[in-house]
Amino acid sequence: MKLSEIGELSLLERIRSRFAASAKDVMAGIGDDSAVVIPRDQPLLLTTDMMTEGVHFDLGLTTCYQIGFKLISVNVSDIYAMGGVPRFVLLDLAADRKTEEQCIESFFDGVQRAMSIYLVRLIGGDLSSSKAGLAVSATVMGYAKKPVMRSGARPGDRIYVTGTLGDSACGLELLKRIRRPLFIETGDRTDSPMGWRTMQPLLRRHLLPEARRPGRVAKVATAMIDVSDGLLIDLSRLCDESGVGARIYMRHLPLSSQMRKAASALGIEPYALATSGGEDYELLFTAPRGRKVDAVVIGEITESERIFVDRNGTERPFSPEGYQHWH
Amino acid sequence: MKLSEIGELSLLERIRSRFAASAKDVMAGIGDDSAVVIPRDQPLLLTTDMMTEGVHFDLGLTTCYQIGFKLISVNVSDIYAMGGVPRFVLLDLAADRKTEEQCIESFFDGVQRAMSIYLVRLIGGDLSSSKAGLAVSATVMGYAKKPVMRSGARPGDRIYVTGTLGDSACGLELLKRIRRPLFIETGDRTDSPMGWRTMQPLLRRHLLPEARRPGRVAKVATAMIDVSDGLLIDLSRLCDESGVGARIYMRHLPLSSQMRKAASALGIEPYALATSGGEDYELLFTAPRGRKVDAVVIGEITESERIFVDRNGTERPFSPEGYQHWH
Repeated sequence: MKLSEIGELSLLERIRSRFAASAKDVMAGIGDDSAVVIPRDQPLLLTTDMMTEGVHFDLGLTTCYQIGFKLISVNVSDIYAMGGVPRFVLLDLAADRKTEEQCIESFFDGVQRAMSIYLVRLIGGDLSSSKAGLAVSATVMGYAKKPVMRSGARPGDRIYVTGTLGDSACGLELLKRIRRPLFIETGDRTDSPMGWRTMQPLLRRHLLPEARRPGRVAKVATAMIDVSDGLLIDLSRLCDESGVGARIYMRHLPLSSQMRKAASALGIEPYALATSGGEDYELLFTAPRGRKVDAVVIGEITESERIFVDRNGTERPFSPEGYQHWH
Repeated sequence: MKLSEIGELSLLERIRSRFAASAKDVMAGIGDDSAVVIPRDQPLLLTTDMMTEGVHFDLGLTTCYQIGFKLISVNVSDIYAMGGVPRFVLLDLAADRKTEEQCIESFFDGVQRAMSIYLVRLIGGDLSSSKAGLAVSATVMGYAKKPVMRSGARPGDRIYVTGTLGDSACGLELLKRIRRPLFIETGDRTDSPMGWRTMQPLLRRHLLPEARRPGRVAKVATAMIDVSDGLLIDLSRLCDESGVGARIYMRHLPLSSQMRKAASALGIEPYALATSGGEDYELLFTAPRGRKVDAVVIGEITESERIFVDRNGTERPFSPEGYQHWH
């Protein structure tokens, strides 16, 4: 059934009953002009991200479930990148009349699954029509006793990353060759163009990314950002805000064995994926030298120089490389 | 210049410096992964609304300034409808490569003008590309010591509205006949299809709506909603949440003299605009009988019957009539 046959009020009713569960800190959720919550006595974090069809996702390559799951993950990742704990979500969804109800239901299945992982609650949103195509956005609110900004890095600090880089970008390259939506959330698989054991984790990183919980990192980090647009562009942002430089070492960048294998089979330079590929949602942070940190050190903060040291020890300046809209 | 010639980073930089002013309750605004604010020790209100090209606005009839202004107003209206005070805004904007930079600048001019009226601050957002067309959404956060829900209306309560109804819908009808964007924000005017003195306030209500501050109403109201989709649909929502009915009187509905005049010239029934026209952003609320209230009484809450009493005293049931997406 298409949305034009269902209508706004009945869809809203369905969403409302699905997300109706009560909570102590929610005075009013979906169904009033605004949501009402009782805030903790802590600094409050707010972030928002939008995803549009044909730019952030292609319905020829992605399921509606994956869009919903990813929308929550990318927003939660911004809360984690402040060392915070996410708590509430608001959603905006615009879809055209021809959209299948099944897609909207699957979208909310993905949203709900992600919410259960991050322990966040949906408290409000807006459903509306669009002329053509799907556009979704989420706002996530959270808390952090001591927020970690991008601006706190100091020369001498070590630079860390919480996991492997380039996996998501490699997963996207695989997906472009598979050329169909892969319902991995329900066990769907494929062995082309290489073995599933190699492909599965990479595709998963791209299609169903999970935001990285900061844990103890939040206590030691002097500055932090999530890797959403690519290592070099996101590191440049951290450096800009801190007014510092950075030196990073190619040989220290963590690459997964699956990514190396897949990149080689695809004829792509794995370090290009690791430095400029987006959507890994690992945390990139700095901490004073000598602190015990459960993450991979990839370099150190400098006064102002921004240097990439390649495998042979050759130094070259780096500049923001990664995804930019409208370019 | 088009966005494709400017790029995301430079546009972001411009927006950031425009909205950079500091505030005591903002620890981090635009430029980090999340905004960080210090909340008041009060219930916190959160609301979001999205507007898409071809559905909520038509760039052949609306200026980019007006879109920005209206986006803030419609969200603030949802905070006012809880008896709240708005404080922070986050914005999402998706535009295609061919969008003129001038449109984006004007959009933010409109946003900024509205922000100065409502005393809210922009603390974050997301810029991204779209395949085609403009999509914008805002999330507004505010406070209310004692939020007024939709659910508090009781039989015997009087029903009030804070201002005239149908003006915005009538303004839209005029605009459809003028068939061009009207830059009223910079003094643009037209005398077709009738005198400017009649048209100006109606067009303004549609193009540059101002949300209605609740003031003392918040103290006496038992239930409240803003009239965004139309009187009958919004009153039905309030009744649904409160589990009550309503009886409203056609002869009590406040209609502006300009709207009566324009509707008559356009051959439209003015009461159809007043009952089913959306986007007036007046507050519709209930209060116990006998309370002194600075608003127009239009009826009373009943046990369950939903009755519209026409000019001749004839009673007929009413049902939700007004804007529904996808229908």
